[in-house]
Amino acid sequence: MDIPSSLVQKAVDEIAQLPGIGRRSALRIVLHLLRQPKDFSARLSNAVATLREQIRYCITCHNISDAKQCNICASPMRERNTICVVEDIRDVMAIESTGQFKGLYHVLGGKIAPMEGVGPQQLSIDALIKRVEQENIDEIIFALSSTMEGDTTNYYIFKKLSVFELHFSAISRGIGVGDELEYADELTLGRSISQRIPFEISMKN
Amino acid sequence: MDIPSSLVQKAVDEIAQLPGIGRRSALRIVLHLLRQPKDFSARLSNAVATLREQIRYCITCHNISDAKQCNICASPMRERNTICVVEDIRDVMAIESTGQFKGLYHVLGGKIAPMEGVGPQQLSIDALIKRVEQENIDEIIFALSSTMEGDTTNYYIFKKLSVFELHFSAISRGIGVGDELEYADELTLGRSISQRIPFEISMKN
Repeated sequence: MDIPSSLVQKAVDEIAQLPGIGRRSALRIVLHLLRQPKDFSARLSNAVATLREQIRYCITCHNISDAKQCNICASPMRERNTICVVEDIRDVMAIESTGQFKGLYHVLGGKIAPMEGVGPQQLSIDALIKRVEQENIDEIIFALSSTMEGDTTNYYIFKKLSVFELHFSAISRGIGVGDELEYADELTLGRSISQRIPFEISMKN
Repeated sequence: MDIPSSLVQKAVDEIAQLPGIGRRSALRIVLHLLRQPKDFSARLSNAVATLREQIRYCITCHNISDAKQCNICASPMRERNTICVVEDIRDVMAIESTGQFKGLYHVLGGKIAPMEGVGPQQLSIDALIKRVEQENIDEIIFALSSTMEGDTTNYYIFKKLSVFELHFSAISRGIGVGDELEYADELTLGRSISQRIPFEISMKN
């Protein structure tokens, strides 16, 4: 499809590079922008520009933050001896919204994925080791996704931290609460059985 | 879900206002932007800003254009006595990609939709009337979508232009080429029968 305006073509090209947006959706977005008042585009453009220019990360846990330290790390209400290791800030938000975790986080910024050129140096693993060295940490909870890259990353960090006296745990995998067993995939159901937990614990909410 | 950075919050708010993008996709896009080099965001921001600031429309047919007049209106190869009336520039691109139309276009910029506050004054209908007055037009082809708003708009324009000596036509509706009859909706199949065409014409590609 030929676009008869180089401005529109350029905007479509840029927008179509975003994840989950194809060229057709990009064109739809551009036409929407053209129909809105000028300050709609100005605000969008400005939000995107300042986002990348001025974004700040918590110096402790690498979560996004408005201040030097994020609200979680700065809070006196959190248990400071437990660190939950996650891939990105969406995972922090997801776990926070459960209200079940009172400890601190460490955001790696991805997983070790040699095929995509992501090695341990691209992740905030050294910063995690430094935290364990300097702070009084008892437990590391791994909450990475259960893929090969996630498992590799968990194992790499585990090896690095095994010189310290720490408890290591991982979030449990299994059938979702309320899900029917017959529709679960075999791998998940298999894990649910092999990694079964004491009945009294299963009754806790 | 609470976002612990006002910059990210603002960017998500703006991006989630775009058509077809929810808050979850907006957050995914923002995280993608944060992972890319700075000039990726700068280029996107720039493309969005200049798009709306510098966009030009063809003074004749209201299609988007880099010059005062679009390539189609300026081309000596087009038949200048036929105008195809469409809603927006995507329709021009779609019809152009068929290679079946050699006339000119007129882009209305929408349909008459009183419920959404769109009246004839918001569309380029007066400009179309002026073209018919001033140029040597023989035929008007309606290619709006076959909704109530589309039909209303067609009829409004038809009434306005009926004082001129013109042929009026509309693009044909029916079962798509290659589609099975049994899966077609009744309305479309009904129209295919009631608006049937001479067999010799149907054999033309």
